[in-house]
Amino acid sequence: MMKNKNILWQQTLVNKSERNLRSSHNSVLLWLTGFSGAGKSTLAHAIERRLYERNCATFVLDGDNVRHGLCSDLGFSQQDREENIRRVGEMAKLFVEAGVITITAFISPYIADRERVRSILPVGEFIEIYCRCPLEVCEERDVKGLYEKARKGLIADFTGISSPYEPPVNPEITVDTGTDDLDKCVGKVLEYLLQHQII
Amino acid sequence: MMKNKNILWQQTLVNKSERNLRSSHNSVLLWLTGFSGAGKSTLAHAIERRLYERNCATFVLDGDNVRHGLCSDLGFSQQDREENIRRVGEMAKLFVEAGVITITAFISPYIADRERVRSILPVGEFIEIYCRCPLEVCEERDVKGLYEKARKGLIADFTGISSPYEPPVNPEITVDTGTDDLDKCVGKVLEYLLQHQII
Repeated sequence: MMKNKNILWQQTLVNKSERNLRSSHNSVLLWLTGFSGAGKSTLAHAIERRLYERNCATFVLDGDNVRHGLCSDLGFSQQDREENIRRVGEMAKLFVEAGVITITAFISPYIADRERVRSILPVGEFIEIYCRCPLEVCEERDVKGLYEKARKGLIADFTGISSPYEPPVNPEITVDTGTDDLDKCVGKVLEYLLQHQII
Repeated sequence: MMKNKNILWQQTLVNKSERNLRSSHNSVLLWLTGFSGAGKSTLAHAIERRLYERNCATFVLDGDNVRHGLCSDLGFSQQDREENIRRVGEMAKLFVEAGVITITAFISPYIADRERVRSILPVGEFIEIYCRCPLEVCEERDVKGLYEKARKGLIADFTGISSPYEPPVNPEITVDTGTDDLDKCVGKVLEYLLQHQII
């Protein structure tokens, strides 16, 4: 079996083009960024649902399935956030290679960290989606009660309160999750994917 | 948009059962273990090709796409190997949740590390495949020239030479990659998947 190892290897590889051809869509990474409470996870799952209904292979990576698993050893210091985003980026890259339209929902506050993820993906496959929502609105909503805790000093390094957020300079898509409803935001993302012939 | 956050979330989640129903196969993790040179990657890609031709969603995680990316910060000490396998296990779990039959090809020499991966997946979804091949055969093949280097002391912690390998005690599947040809090994895995109504 090993005599022809290289030949066999070449014969058996399934590549991304082949996967995309069969699934009738391209695979890309939709990278959502924004404050806690801006609606990233909600939007991510709503996009996933719409794509799924169009028969696309799709998956959401967010705090719920990453922070307790792959990144359970990491906290929220700048260094740990950097490593968190690095790992998510590397994992997302493999999901994209597997032919999956991958949607990530992480605050990802630092430009450098997001750009590093962009740089490991082929050109055009990293699509930055800025979930723009004023901090006051996020804090007013405070769905998980985190802002209140952060204001009381019970949570260290909380983005927007005690840790910086660097908005995207030139994101592929901006959605106003503070003023627009969910359908409108999802529609804007789908429109982009259609216009760029990704789906 | 956020007033009904929880309701919207529930509406939009796409779960594994739904994915599996649509793809007409279940998603599981095929965990290959064995010495360097036992043929794990070759076998993994051959299994992937066969599954792909049956219209299955499938993907291979191996040293080629993980060691330079997600785990580029890790070496080969026992501690780093443990963390490497932990991360691969967590990532593979998410691929399985995404509906993908995931095939991993890592030496993964320690029983405890493999059992930890088994424990984070639902019962029946971790399928351990022992790529059984005598060390002498692997060393004789020495496809990458690693055994020669390890014997000369140029590589530290090399499994089988300067680092232990703990064979599976009760693997779901054993393939004799030292004596059987590739087709036979692939066939044995496919047979298992069919018998257990995974595909």
